Amino acid sequence: KKVIDLSADYRLPAGMYEKWYDAQHTDLDNLKEAVYGLPEVYRDKINKAQLIANPGCYPTSIILGCLPIVKQGIAKVDTIIVDSKTGVTGAGRKAALPLSFSEVNENLKAYKVNAHQHKPEVNQELAKVTNKVVDIVFTPHLIPINRGILSTIYLKLKKDIDTKELASVYRKFYRTEPFVRVSSDRLPEVRDVVNTNYCDIGVTVSGSMAIIVSCIDNLIKGAAGQAAQNMNIMCNFDEKEGLIT
Amino acid sequence: KKVIDLSADYRLPAGMYEKWYDAQHTDLDNLKEAVYGLPEVYRDKINKAQLIANPGCYPTSIILGCLPIVKQGIAKVDTIIVDSKTGVTGAGRKAALPLSFSEVNENLKAYKVNAHQHKPEVNQELAKVTNKVVDIVFTPHLIPINRGILSTIYLKLKKDIDTKELASVYRKFYRTEPFVRVSSDRLPEVRDVVNTNYCDIGVTVSGSMAIIVSCIDNLIKGAAGQAAQNMNIMCNFDEKEGLIT
Amino acid sequence: KKVIDLSADYRLPAGMYEKWYDAQHTDLDNLKEAVYGLPEVYRDKINKAQLIANPGCYPTSIILGCLPIVKQGIAKVDTIIVDSKTGVTGAGRKAALPLSFSEVNENLKAYKVNAHQHKPEVNQELAKVTNKVVDIVFTPHLIPINRGILSTIYLKLKKDIDTKELASVYRKFYRTEPFVRVSSDRLPEVRDVVNTNYCDIGVTVSGSMAIIVSCIDNLIKGAAGQAAQNMNIMCNFDEKEGLIT
Amino acid sequence: KKVIDLSADYRLPAGMYEKWYDAQHTDLDNLKEAVYGLPEVYRDKINKAQLIANPGCYPTSIILGCLPIVKQGIAKVDTIIVDSKTGVTGAGRKAALPLSFSEVNENLKAYKVNAHQHKPEVNQELAKVTNKVVDIVFTPHLIPINRGILSTIYLKLKKDIDTKELASVYRKFYRTEPFVRVSSDRLPEVRDVVNTNYCDIGVTVSGSMAIIVSCIDNLIKGAAGQAAQNMNIMCNFDEKEGLIT
Repeated sequence: KKVIDLSADYRLPAGMYEKWYDAQHTDLDNLKEAVYGLPEVYRDKINKAQLIANPGCYPTSIILGCLPIVKQGIAKVDTIIVDSKTGVTGAGRKAALPLSFSEVNENLKAYKVNAHQHKPEVNQELAKVTNKVVDIVFTPHLIPINRGILSTIYLKLKKDIDTKELASVYRKFYRTEPFVRVSSDRLPEVRDVVNTNYCDIGVTVSGSMAIIVSCIDNLIKGAAGQAAQNMNIMCNFDEKEGLIT
Repeated sequence: KKVIDLSADYRLPAGMYEKWYDAQHTDLDNLKEAVYGLPEVYRDKINKAQLIANPGCYPTSIILGCLPIVKQGIAKVDTIIVDSKTGVTGAGRKAALPLSFSEVNENLKAYKVNAHQHKPEVNQELAKVTNKVVDIVFTPHLIPINRGILSTIYLKLKKDIDTKELASVYRKFYRTEPFVRVSSDRLPEVRDVVNTNYCDIGVTVSGSMAIIVSCIDNLIKGAAGQAAQNMNIMCNFDEKEGLIT
Repeated sequence: KKVIDLSADYRLPAGMYEKWYDAQHTDLDNLKEAVYGLPEVYRDKINKAQLIANPGCYPTSIILGCLPIVKQGIAKVDTIIVDSKTGVTGAGRKAALPLSFSEVNENLKAYKVNAHQHKPEVNQELAKVTNKVVDIVFTPHLIPINRGILSTIYLKLKKDIDTKELASVYRKFYRTEPFVRVSSDRLPEVRDVVNTNYCDIGVTVSGSMAIIVSCIDNLIKGAAGQAAQNMNIMCNFDEKEGLIT
Repeated sequence: KKVIDLSADYRLPAGMYEKWYDAQHTDLDNLKEAVYGLPEVYRDKINKAQLIANPGCYPTSIILGCLPIVKQGIAKVDTIIVDSKTGVTGAGRKAALPLSFSEVNENLKAYKVNAHQHKPEVNQELAKVTNKVVDIVFTPHLIPINRGILSTIYLKLKKDIDTKELASVYRKFYRTEPFVRVSSDRLPEVRDVVNTNYCDIGVTVSGSMAIIVSCIDNLIKGAAGQAAQNMNIMCNFDEKEGLIT
């Protein structure tokens, strides 16, 4: 049986898992075989896999936002700053005071500053594509909306490049991807992607910094939609089946 | 010691209390002495009382909205329809799934239709001032705002009266009240009263119906503010002390 | 060419149109031929029509909520009270201070009390199905949500009937309708219908009153979805085509 | 007459003003005399001034968040990254489609990336206190709340320091300030400061980065409250007069 796991159980090596999730890993055999389910990186492996570790919502927005620029060596990887904002469903559906309407509404806060469990997941994946140690600075924020993640990513450029050129790099990188859209003249907003499987990425260069804005619906591209996309790939269905209406 | 009780424990006779709150009353002696803490009706009794039953939030908005028209016999009391809308803090601060942000936000619902425990409290008080049996139809609704109650009240008129005359009845009735404001040209909105101890009442006549809109902040005039107002009356302080800045 | 008009221009006779919309009607010939596009009442006429007057959003929720009970003579039609609540898109997309975020958010208000232009549309349609003069009392309210209408309708019963029996009348009435769903144990909420073409109706009897809660998405069943449903009927397509995914 | 100007007209030198606000400056004489109205930096000058340029909302939150760490030379000033989030009133009260409820609600976006007119104001003030050229990277975001700004500030540390020590630097720096509160164990949230004149600052060190969260109510400490504080200073009133109840 083919399995797509939406939890965090198969995303990290056992040691990292135990450190960040504070739990013993009890399925080490399957852990070794699991493929990280980000189609834009691992499409071929996903196609042949038996067990998919579906990526976290923050990491999906962050990794897709960083991939072209770090893979092509345009930006430094030792000082990536990620300021993410998420809607409330990012925390799951549960009865908890910090998630109650009157605590969240008309409020705005940072939480788990540089200590969120999705940080090692991003570090691991960016390290794999760059062959370098990556340690992002990551601040998640809770916003009073139901759905959506917007990650604002700050990267130090290694060479002279302007917004147009960088956008061109991103467009070329993702030109065959059905669910990644790149823009430079208008930055993406959360409502552009809500209820869709798209990751929208906006690119700006300002001096020696690239500022990347990456938006997804945390419940679709950040969870169930990406799982369906992975299922389509595993089963040799059209990758967009059920995801573009 | 003088006590102002913000719970519902001393608002209804024991039998009604047990029926609507599904609990045995364990303090019958004090119950007999308790005064219903609505200053606009019971100011003198409040001044001499030892134990105040602070009114519920819905009843405060409804009773104040109905008082002039029913007390003066302008409207029938046998078909009062009350459609109330409340912010989330009306339910108290607690971890409960129905109060979580993603359940409440972008949603709107009726609940406890004609079965809310505040209904007998309104019936009792309107019956006292009219010497008639009153049985309102009462539908509360939950709205995605933090604070505020807006009650829309429909009453059948017993005689010909226009908006201007009815507004004049209301203004006269409340002319010495520090915390009731009457309007007819512009209906009150929740934000007019949020963070204040005011009850704002708007009056409209349409054919043989009076449509009354009554707004309060459920946490102030509907709870702590009214308690402070009662304390001021009990202690012979200026009734507005601490409530108008 | 077949036309489905989403404006209010072909819903009322010229005289009523001019009174309520304060404009001269300039297309009287077509006005005579227009069919009111509520499929649950006029399906056969819609099928043969050249010009459809697509119903207003409030009227769709109200008429569908009232139809079974008034058509079967179970409730009086001379004292129908409708307390409607709408999201902001009900007013259209425009730059207007009363629709700006900080005016609407954390606020709640009634407007156009018994003077809204959708009132004659409801009166006309309920009069047609009952052969009686109907003059509802109608109070619209603006709620800080994007989409959705919830109408709470109060009707005086002419005979003894309980919730279960009344729900059964509604279910029977709408049993072949693809886009009307009836409930009695749990009342509908706005989020049950948002992004769908459904009208969800909840039924409660309390004493001699029926309290009906009727919910639609104002942009779908209240506008474009109902237009698509009408198009499907006019073109002999499957009525659900494009509306149920 | 003493004047406190809430506009941006007297905050920048004429050249910078003309560049960022795209308007000719027409009052150069007064511009020379204007004092930047940030009491935590210019209290003595404010006391003697005739004309105060009341600071912008973003700059108030950012400058106060950076002052201790840059003035004491603990962090580099050449790579300050500021990711700010504001409520809707930050844009003023006006009829504009981008500020309408249905555009803002359930949405989240970055705007004027590194091109906001408040950026030179921050650069100028941080340059003055450090005697260095400062050019922050500044991304403002619009959030669906009425009031409040939260700025998340990323600074590269020049020396080894932990969260506790850095918090101690901030506390010492602001120990006599009536409207700045510093925390390290719990980061400030917008609702901690809404309806107050406080600037709440939370301090975290993670590796070689300081992450500072700075919150104000944009309408109070970011506008009218700070103006009142300046007035108190100019008139030798108690600085807290009317601002702490």
